[in-house]
Amino acid sequence: MSGLKKTSEKHLMLFSGRAYPELADEVAELVGCELTPTRALAYANSEIYVRFEESVRGSDAFVIQSHPAPVNEWIMEQLIMIDALKRASADRITVVAPFYPYARQDKKHAGREPISARLIADLFKAAGADRIMSVDLHAAQIQGFFDGPVDHLWALPVLADYVAESYDTDELVVVSPDAGRVRLADLWTDRLGCPLAIIHKRRDPNVANQVAVHEVVGDVEGKVCLLVDDMIDTAGTITQAADALLARGAKKVIAAATHPVLSGPAAQRLNESNFEEVIVTNTLPITTDEPIDKLTVLSIAPLIAKAIHEVFEDGSVTKLFDGQA
Amino acid sequence: MSGLKKTSEKHLMLFSGRAYPELADEVAELVGCELTPTRALAYANSEIYVRFEESVRGSDAFVIQSHPAPVNEWIMEQLIMIDALKRASADRITVVAPFYPYARQDKKHAGREPISARLIADLFKAAGADRIMSVDLHAAQIQGFFDGPVDHLWALPVLADYVAESYDTDELVVVSPDAGRVRLADLWTDRLGCPLAIIHKRRDPNVANQVAVHEVVGDVEGKVCLLVDDMIDTAGTITQAADALLARGAKKVIAAATHPVLSGPAAQRLNESNFEEVIVTNTLPITTDEPIDKLTVLSIAPLIAKAIHEVFEDGSVTKLFDGQA
Amino acid sequence: MSGLKKTSEKHLMLFSGRAYPELADEVAELVGCELTPTRALAYANSEIYVRFEESVRGSDAFVIQSHPAPVNEWIMEQLIMIDALKRASADRITVVAPFYPYARQDKKHAGREPISARLIADLFKAAGADRIMSVDLHAAQIQGFFDGPVDHLWALPVLADYVAESYDTDELVVVSPDAGRVRLADLWTDRLGCPLAIIHKRRDPNVANQVAVHEVVGDVEGKVCLLVDDMIDTAGTITQAADALLARGAKKVIAAATHPVLSGPAAQRLNESNFEEVIVTNTLPITTDEPIDKLTVLSIAPLIAKAIHEVFEDGSVTKLFDGQA
Amino acid sequence: MSGLKKTSEKHLMLFSGRAYPELADEVAELVGCELTPTRALAYANSEIYVRFEESVRGSDAFVIQSHPAPVNEWIMEQLIMIDALKRASADRITVVAPFYPYARQDKKHAGREPISARLIADLFKAAGADRIMSVDLHAAQIQGFFDGPVDHLWALPVLADYVAESYDTDELVVVSPDAGRVRLADLWTDRLGCPLAIIHKRRDPNVANQVAVHEVVGDVEGKVCLLVDDMIDTAGTITQAADALLARGAKKVIAAATHPVLSGPAAQRLNESNFEEVIVTNTLPITTDEPIDKLTVLSIAPLIAKAIHEVFEDGSVTKLFDGQA
Amino acid sequence: MSGLKKTSEKHLMLFSGRAYPELADEVAELVGCELTPTRALAYANSEIYVRFEESVRGSDAFVIQSHPAPVNEWIMEQLIMIDALKRASADRITVVAPFYPYARQDKKHAGREPISARLIADLFKAAGADRIMSVDLHAAQIQGFFDGPVDHLWALPVLADYVAESYDTDELVVVSPDAGRVRLADLWTDRLGCPLAIIHKRRDPNVANQVAVHEVVGDVEGKVCLLVDDMIDTAGTITQAADALLARGAKKVIAAATHPVLSGPAAQRLNESNFEEVIVTNTLPITTDEPIDKLTVLSIAPLIAKAIHEVFEDGSVTKLFDGQA
Amino acid sequence: MSGLKKTSEKHLMLFSGRAYPELADEVAELVGCELTPTRALAYANSEIYVRFEESVRGSDAFVIQSHPAPVNEWIMEQLIMIDALKRASADRITVVAPFYPYARQDKKHAGREPISARLIADLFKAAGADRIMSVDLHAAQIQGFFDGPVDHLWALPVLADYVAESYDTDELVVVSPDAGRVRLADLWTDRLGCPLAIIHKRRDPNVANQVAVHEVVGDVEGKVCLLVDDMIDTAGTITQAADALLARGAKKVIAAATHPVLSGPAAQRLNESNFEEVIVTNTLPITTDEPIDKLTVLSIAPLIAKAIHEVFEDGSVTKLFDGQA
Repeated sequence: MSGLKKTSEKHLMLFSGRAYPELADEVAELVGCELTPTRALAYANSEIYVRFEESVRGSDAFVIQSHPAPVNEWIMEQLIMIDALKRASADRITVVAPFYPYARQDKKHAGREPISARLIADLFKAAGADRIMSVDLHAAQIQGFFDGPVDHLWALPVLADYVAESYDTDELVVVSPDAGRVRLADLWTDRLGCPLAIIHKRRDPNVANQVAVHEVVGDVEGKVCLLVDDMIDTAGTITQAADALLARGAKKVIAAATHPVLSGPAAQRLNESNFEEVIVTNTLPITTDEPIDKLTVLSIAPLIAKAIHEVFEDGSVTKLFDGQA
Repeated sequence: MSGLKKTSEKHLMLFSGRAYPELADEVAELVGCELTPTRALAYANSEIYVRFEESVRGSDAFVIQSHPAPVNEWIMEQLIMIDALKRASADRITVVAPFYPYARQDKKHAGREPISARLIADLFKAAGADRIMSVDLHAAQIQGFFDGPVDHLWALPVLADYVAESYDTDELVVVSPDAGRVRLADLWTDRLGCPLAIIHKRRDPNVANQVAVHEVVGDVEGKVCLLVDDMIDTAGTITQAADALLARGAKKVIAAATHPVLSGPAAQRLNESNFEEVIVTNTLPITTDEPIDKLTVLSIAPLIAKAIHEVFEDGSVTKLFDGQA
Repeated sequence: MSGLKKTSEKHLMLFSGRAYPELADEVAELVGCELTPTRALAYANSEIYVRFEESVRGSDAFVIQSHPAPVNEWIMEQLIMIDALKRASADRITVVAPFYPYARQDKKHAGREPISARLIADLFKAAGADRIMSVDLHAAQIQGFFDGPVDHLWALPVLADYVAESYDTDELVVVSPDAGRVRLADLWTDRLGCPLAIIHKRRDPNVANQVAVHEVVGDVEGKVCLLVDDMIDTAGTITQAADALLARGAKKVIAAATHPVLSGPAAQRLNESNFEEVIVTNTLPITTDEPIDKLTVLSIAPLIAKAIHEVFEDGSVTKLFDGQA
Repeated sequence: MSGLKKTSEKHLMLFSGRAYPELADEVAELVGCELTPTRALAYANSEIYVRFEESVRGSDAFVIQSHPAPVNEWIMEQLIMIDALKRASADRITVVAPFYPYARQDKKHAGREPISARLIADLFKAAGADRIMSVDLHAAQIQGFFDGPVDHLWALPVLADYVAESYDTDELVVVSPDAGRVRLADLWTDRLGCPLAIIHKRRDPNVANQVAVHEVVGDVEGKVCLLVDDMIDTAGTITQAADALLARGAKKVIAAATHPVLSGPAAQRLNESNFEEVIVTNTLPITTDEPIDKLTVLSIAPLIAKAIHEVFEDGSVTKLFDGQA
Repeated sequence: MSGLKKTSEKHLMLFSGRAYPELADEVAELVGCELTPTRALAYANSEIYVRFEESVRGSDAFVIQSHPAPVNEWIMEQLIMIDALKRASADRITVVAPFYPYARQDKKHAGREPISARLIADLFKAAGADRIMSVDLHAAQIQGFFDGPVDHLWALPVLADYVAESYDTDELVVVSPDAGRVRLADLWTDRLGCPLAIIHKRRDPNVANQVAVHEVVGDVEGKVCLLVDDMIDTAGTITQAADALLARGAKKVIAAATHPVLSGPAAQRLNESNFEEVIVTNTLPITTDEPIDKLTVLSIAPLIAKAIHEVFEDGSVTKLFDGQA
Repeated sequence: MSGLKKTSEKHLMLFSGRAYPELADEVAELVGCELTPTRALAYANSEIYVRFEESVRGSDAFVIQSHPAPVNEWIMEQLIMIDALKRASADRITVVAPFYPYARQDKKHAGREPISARLIADLFKAAGADRIMSVDLHAAQIQGFFDGPVDHLWALPVLADYVAESYDTDELVVVSPDAGRVRLADLWTDRLGCPLAIIHKRRDPNVANQVAVHEVVGDVEGKVCLLVDDMIDTAGTITQAADALLARGAKKVIAAATHPVLSGPAAQRLNESNFEEVIVTNTLPITTDEPIDKLTVLSIAPLIAKAIHEVFEDGSVTKLFDGQA
């Protein structure tokens, strides 16, 4: 037979964008390999330039980028990295986006709106991505926006184990801050074995044109209320929810959320709030103007590192979550 | 200048699959044009054959198909119709699927599952569909599964107007039958100005290995409870919810849902249930073995007809819903 | 150099739909590996659910599905299996469809018809299939409907060897039951070294508006006539052909066909016919209401198993047929 | 409402490659519009250059190219014309290829062969073609190779009307020159009401290693034999068939075929043959070295012109053939 | 015939991103229609939200966005606008990007670099753009990066007419500031009828490891030197070139460039330079920290408005440039 | 775990078209493996047929084809080879096109022109190519025309080393024959450390309607002028340039170009010219009617062989050029 034969090798390579290199470093150390040296910069006119300083030919490439503000900057950087990998003959390209950008624009709320979360999936595809890995998508349906495998990791075990160790679960009630997060709260009640309550925003029927009141549905009196959400952005909803819970007789209020977006007035609001503790992971860097004393940050890196290991080894990612995806 | 010129015309044509021709007939009458004569049949070996009996060249084609059981049959028929339209030079092909099939498989609940709702969108695209029109998608994110325009119609106004006319809204409380439908219940409370309650399924912490108890979160005593959902399939969840509400002192229980899937034991369960009335639309035909006396069926045809008219006339579909989508 | 390296492995995995698990079992045993455990079911409303119970990441997956009635059910099941494999990171997905569904709608016979055989190829592609393996396509051109490799297996050697062992080839004449199968009959004459005859359907020029007469073109008197076709569906054509041959002095009539579709009146017609023997393979399960005594079923599993082995080992499939494809 | 409105116009434009401009001229005259002035040439190194000398923006463009030898030249020219139209904002691009190139390579006859007829469809698509119009595809399945509308025109009425006017159909027998053309012969027998015969190539069982003998299946003695085929290429098959028919007692032999490929020894063979008349259309130019006296060439231009008219006017092409496609 | 018919209308709609609304306003006024009211904003976490406040269904949409710093922000905004238009059923979407972003990364200068200019074309395509309109692409080959029509406008006539009116062309010599712009300078010499010179950067062969010297190739003594480029970014190259020209005896130095990127030290460098005048267009807004006195800004809006008019009217864009593209 | 596992192997296979088999032979010998036996021929009607005579399943296939005249023939042959490889399950297909065809049509020079170089990339993609390898693209931007990896090889080191060995670089001046090649000339000056001159074509301002004069910009008196270009086609530009240089006092003129297109009058012009030596590589075969005495042909095969080796071994191609691409 004509031709030449040789045994195939797989080559795992890790790449990091500039948004949050500390997380990528932590992941790389846990995976047990170095980040591939990369030259990345923005020119004076703000265009981004990227070049990898080693051959990436044939590699199983994982492109780790976090998506804090300015988010469009980091999206474009990641797209440019993917394009460079594709043209340099990487074998497979996996986007690692611990916080999926534009996840909240996952449907049209009104006519003539974009579905930016789908657009993001299309852009990753157009650039050359084969796979996506992300943590706690705002809606699990976003998995279906990408035409290819999506490894959807859950921070819930990380957060819930911490809560279970730090608080007496007999006193806890899990509270959804609005109607859209009840399903998430439901998962927490399953895991911790606690009752459920929800905050329901509703126009006061007795007063014309008034803003919504925060009605507490469920029993919270004398309880330690755990407000849960996938992200804390400006912290408006969650701090108002805390006030409503305390007004209804809650003993204490804590919060747990995967993604610390913490933009705009978030730090000030949390510092002025009555929260006992606010627990998040480091899918995003904490870059608030003022420090937030009651903030506890748990590392997501071990989870991501384990998932990358499973993907590279053709193992199972869902077994990390007892088969759930 | 070389060539020939003539004024362009648009040509609206309506096509119907065989799943529920009565709905298509009703829509066609309201739109003011006849369904295009179509030969459709299944051969002895169950393969489907379709042929249109008039030229469809250049048409703005709307392919109306309902998706009751056997759902795979009707999906394939619609795909085959689309393929035939594409190859016969239709100008634009819009899938009209009042009940989007496989909508509940909109994400991976566990590892190694399909996302069949995305698959359905991909199949429509592969066959040649340019646009999709559907009513009350199980998750609004399904809009983002299709790479093109999706006209998402809402049955809520139709259902809610009927409820408001038939019941005293001061007595009503809107109830979500589980954690996943709270957002929908929330929309109902906004429209009717009523309070909210939810049914929360939870393992009884006092009994080992026991099945979930149906906890009522919120106040329902002496109230007329309106259970809302996007669909009623086997009616298990909703009839158990009704029992739980009556056990908690509700005065009366009614239910409203867009899609009457009503499969398996649904008819028997509803007939044996304590519901005062169950209100649905005709996005699907009612084909239960036994009649359901307390069932009220409102027609969705006027809404679909108006939407088709707006699409054909380059008007606005979202204005039918005050700009929401 | 940064990164981690390890030797690559290929992992063959076999999957079976629910249409005809016995065939898949037989193939799996011959290949020497077990079918991957799979949970597959239809919900009450007829939607199909599939989940694989082992990790399939990185696998070279073969999805075996037979396509008897209800064919649309089994097509959708196979598409859903492919979608699940794609999203679970299978490395390569091969559709094994021993009987290619909708193969007879391989062209437009009249205006505004679909080309459903192409549609099927497009649907497999859209779901995520990389390759197709099939036996005796109704038209070999269907290979060109798929944008990727198609392994086209031939049952002719299996069938012809059986005929050659069971009958005296000096007495045989190969008969095409209509104008469309002459090329196939031609291949049989080459292999068995027999003369050719054909049945030609033609309107009787002497009688107005009459149905076609079955004219025998070629010499069949005193011969053992072997009617050949790729499939037997309702058995109408072939039993009429047998009658015509006997009327023209044939000594005996036998039939050989790859695909036992055997729908509608097929069993009754064959049982009432004058065939000595009807020889088929098991690309489809035999599910007729009544047993067909004169039916001989040869297994196609060894051929499929060999072909899967060649594909997995980067060997040659066409060498199984002396280079023909 | 913002924006500007105006009535839409459609603009038919005809373009011709350089392979056979006389046919395009004839079509243009019948359509009633001029060919768009085009600059087309081959540079010294054989690369082709094309430029249109009028704006084509928004046009409904028909690109007429014939595909005689050197066929690759004319394929590339047509692809380049399509690319230029796409980039110049033509609204819709229809390939008019009276003789579809590479149609005979419509399947793999052996392993590791291309399916060039599918490749051609893919190349047209990649260049930007929206639709294809062709005459008498070698296999009707080629319609399914293109992902879009294919207008498949039939020369049979043109050819058969001529035969019916020129010969006594009571004396005629339609003969297929080999097993692969029996279906076509069958269509002729339907149209002319004649009996059928076929030439069957078969290895002589009495002589080892000998080439095939041409067995005549059917009764031709004293008859006028009409050999039919879709094309005459080197004329080997058809002239051997004529000899075999005359040897079996045929009174006269004529031939009819759509496409006069007439390459290599065709002219010499036909001139030396015993054909009374050979009837073809002008889907290809006649460019043989020596004239062929018995050749009758019927124009295909009226059929193409009518089809273009129907396509532009959103009429029906299949009605030109009583609904068949 | 079934269905409804009506005359088609085309509807031009103009949309503007937030990067440089003044240019879009100017274009809209010249086109004679208003910009479609649009709600666009950045959330606290920097994600962009866009919604159109009128129906855009069926429109011929032109999305005008300028691309100054922060360029990634404006790219993402434009992509989001395109996605929203696609999903809202716009008929055709044209990107108007007067300054094509990332145009300088139009090839790999070194291994493992991206080709960001191609990536940008792919992103526009993925979002749903049908066409692109741009001014003076850094390399004309970028037209070929997009799979569809690109209207490439030239500012040269605008700039050159101004120069010809303001200066004595007999005194002028056109100078390319480096080897990469000679082709552009060549076009200027053709238009103005002037001689050519170029600045050639070259390592001084007499001094080891030294930076490049700016060699003037061609005769500039006593001349008015017109340095031409497609853009002025940090103004380093062009101010060094001016010094070199004056050192070689040039009488005066002026510069003309289409795109005023003017980032980083550009304003300071130009203010400190010996340029008589620097002429640019307003494809980008001038947003330097300090004003640049010698800067002359010519409006590009009339050219863009004319081109949009031609595109909408199915006229010719290239006729605006005597057929060149 | 179910399934079968085995170690993966990579299998390099080389294929050659018929345009210039000697080059492929040379490459194969250097790579150290034989060309895969291939049957390729043109039928009488000029259609090409290709078949590989060994299994290619799973191979890493390199399809080497040169593109001299008749270039469309060789493009189609290569496309057909790619289609056959794709359908025969090759794992990865790399086009090796030492001279990229239609490279000069890399942009629209005028309205309604094609961008044939992009078309070529699209055709390769449509046929199934995964990667392209080429030498000295006419414009480096052509890399961006292909949606995948392009290995862009440079002949400059090969040519320049020969020049440096054969001539005294102190006497040399590098000359660009027109404005479009200055960037290339610039690379030569960098490598050889020589000054630069350019030939500037310009209409003589003193004579109406006259053809361009060849102005020499830069100092060439007494120098050995090295005219550089990427290709020599009809040799018109370069021989006129040589005359202009000698007229301006050059001592000697030599030329170096990668691609010896040498079509039409090239051989005669070069033989009649005053060139001392013309240096090219063998990316194309030399097939001129008359021999060209002063032509020196350097082999490009070692470079291609090294690059194929790097690609197969997942090494680095750009390291062959010190990281440049």
